[in-house]
Amino acid sequence: MTNAEAVTVTNKQIIFPDYVTGFPKESDLKITTTTIDLRLPEGSTSVLVKNLYLSCDPYMRICMGKPDPLSSSLVPPYKTGVPIIGLGVSKVIDSGHPDYKKGDLLWGLVGWEEYSVITLTTYSHFKIEHTDVPLSYYTGLLGMPGMTAYAGFYEVCSPKKGETVFVSAASGAVGQLVGQFAKLMGCYVVGSAGSKEKVYLLKTKFGFDDAFNYKEEKDFSAALKRYFPEGIDIYFENVGGKMLDAVLINMKLHGRVAVCGMISQYNLVDPEGVHNLPTILYKRIQLQGFGVCDFYDKYPKFLDFVLPYIREGKITYVEDIAEGFESGPSALLGLFEGKNVGKQLFVVARE
Amino acid sequence: MTNAEAVTVTNKQIIFPDYVTGFPKESDLKITTTTIDLRLPEGSTSVLVKNLYLSCDPYMRICMGKPDPLSSSLVPPYKTGVPIIGLGVSKVIDSGHPDYKKGDLLWGLVGWEEYSVITLTTYSHFKIEHTDVPLSYYTGLLGMPGMTAYAGFYEVCSPKKGETVFVSAASGAVGQLVGQFAKLMGCYVVGSAGSKEKVYLLKTKFGFDDAFNYKEEKDFSAALKRYFPEGIDIYFENVGGKMLDAVLINMKLHGRVAVCGMISQYNLVDPEGVHNLPTILYKRIQLQGFGVCDFYDKYPKFLDFVLPYIREGKITYVEDIAEGFESGPSALLGLFEGKNVGKQLFVVARE
Repeated sequence: MTNAEAVTVTNKQIIFPDYVTGFPKESDLKITTTTIDLRLPEGSTSVLVKNLYLSCDPYMRICMGKPDPLSSSLVPPYKTGVPIIGLGVSKVIDSGHPDYKKGDLLWGLVGWEEYSVITLTTYSHFKIEHTDVPLSYYTGLLGMPGMTAYAGFYEVCSPKKGETVFVSAASGAVGQLVGQFAKLMGCYVVGSAGSKEKVYLLKTKFGFDDAFNYKEEKDFSAALKRYFPEGIDIYFENVGGKMLDAVLINMKLHGRVAVCGMISQYNLVDPEGVHNLPTILYKRIQLQGFGVCDFYDKYPKFLDFVLPYIREGKITYVEDIAEGFESGPSALLGLFEGKNVGKQLFVVARE
Repeated sequence: MTNAEAVTVTNKQIIFPDYVTGFPKESDLKITTTTIDLRLPEGSTSVLVKNLYLSCDPYMRICMGKPDPLSSSLVPPYKTGVPIIGLGVSKVIDSGHPDYKKGDLLWGLVGWEEYSVITLTTYSHFKIEHTDVPLSYYTGLLGMPGMTAYAGFYEVCSPKKGETVFVSAASGAVGQLVGQFAKLMGCYVVGSAGSKEKVYLLKTKFGFDDAFNYKEEKDFSAALKRYFPEGIDIYFENVGGKMLDAVLINMKLHGRVAVCGMISQYNLVDPEGVHNLPTILYKRIQLQGFGVCDFYDKYPKFLDFVLPYIREGKITYVEDIAEGFESGPSALLGLFEGKNVGKQLFVVARE
């Protein structure tokens, strides 16, 4: 049963022409315009949505690489010639699915286009029930990155009060929350980021105990020793490569590393070598790779946990919002140069 | 209260002259002869033992390196100018400790010498209660390596029936047991070792489903794909470096790696780079470094588990026993060239 009017509108799309090697360029994403009928065919069980906010996330670089059975265990490669798939906040225009009706809001996987027809699978989409908080938060704090920080910190790292926590890419969509969760837990937390502005944010806005600009440090290990003279209990890993090498030799006995991302490696044809792995043995360290997809059953519990903190102003969130559909490609590519300050997204439409 | 005769005897010792870089040589271990009084001083709380079997273990190479705060979290560096410390099976000659009396047998940390005066600390020594099994087993199957295999496989790897298991250095003191534990658990298990003879042992004596000689493989990853077309659930890591790199890309989703040792790295001035760490993220793999010292509270439980299997012939153990005190240095150094077949130890005295 459909309830939309039978109108056909233009639908701008960001197409993925071909697989990418090295740093992606703007030419790797092409904007085209097509049309779409704003009514689903009779009998459809899909949902037709208007996309409001589209999310730029580091994992998307993995999807842009040549299909690889290794990385596709976490995220599938993009299909060429069609729009990029990403997370977005969308409004239902027409629905053949019993769980959604016209006007409902949801977040989940959509095409990078103005209108998408989506097929619901387990945890592919979540209905947005709470709208007293910014709707764009459902691409970040209240969406996949928020759940990632929650699952990675609480479930993977098993933090205890008083422990020392280091977060890399700390002002990003996930890192800024991990730092705030660590403070709520009574931990000492230091973050690294790639600019003075981000370091300032970490220390003032997000309440990190300290922070440093990794681009100003010749020796990451020496920097870590400055902030963690007694060593690190928990490392929330977003970066990989040289940073991981430096962290390993600064970990405490029985330390835990939650491997959430390795953004420094995604654009390399050959990943860097990490040399200090014997430390895993010496210090009896746990490295745990995780994906948020394994934790989505805890999403309602996460909302119950985090919404009161947001309403009381005890958790804050910084977004880097690009305006307009055409800004999508540069917003995404900026992630890999650290241009974003906070969670990167772009606005397709405000309602 | 002491109960030994006041006799002074010669005491041969294997002295550690200085810290070692690269592969240790025989000149890095010097045999000297001193004397010892076979009666403890009045009021001593120590135990004086005659050493019967002394154990050669890969971790000892770590102790021979320059003192390093990283590795000393697992094992302390040796002191120079005094005997090497290792694990041994010993007989009590005189005791000032209430838990031991003359004639008792124990295993634990002793000097590489004919007679040692030992001071008991928590889990430094264990009384040998079961002597219907070979006494030398307390340097291996029933001692530290056995407990290592037990804790590493059951506690760290959380194995399930039907899972696929890969063990490197599989014919060694620990590996041969991990393979047998894996078969008892109903797993499929493949081992790697460094000679035809060892591969034969793995397949015939220890019941591994398959085994390969890593020295005959140009491409470790291709070898692993041959034996694990569907991937590896559990990797029991004894080797590190290139082997770890190859294993990582052959792991299954949610695979577990128990990091027990990295013998290929101990003699390197700079450890090799491991390049495939992004796989930890993609496959959501756990790497867990562990030390047997964290599990010694489970030693009685381990004995209850393993002794019946030994008595019923369901677990077997291969030892490489060098004869005589003078054979100690070459026995130890042979480990780093893979000369040992099975658990390496040497006999100081049979009783």
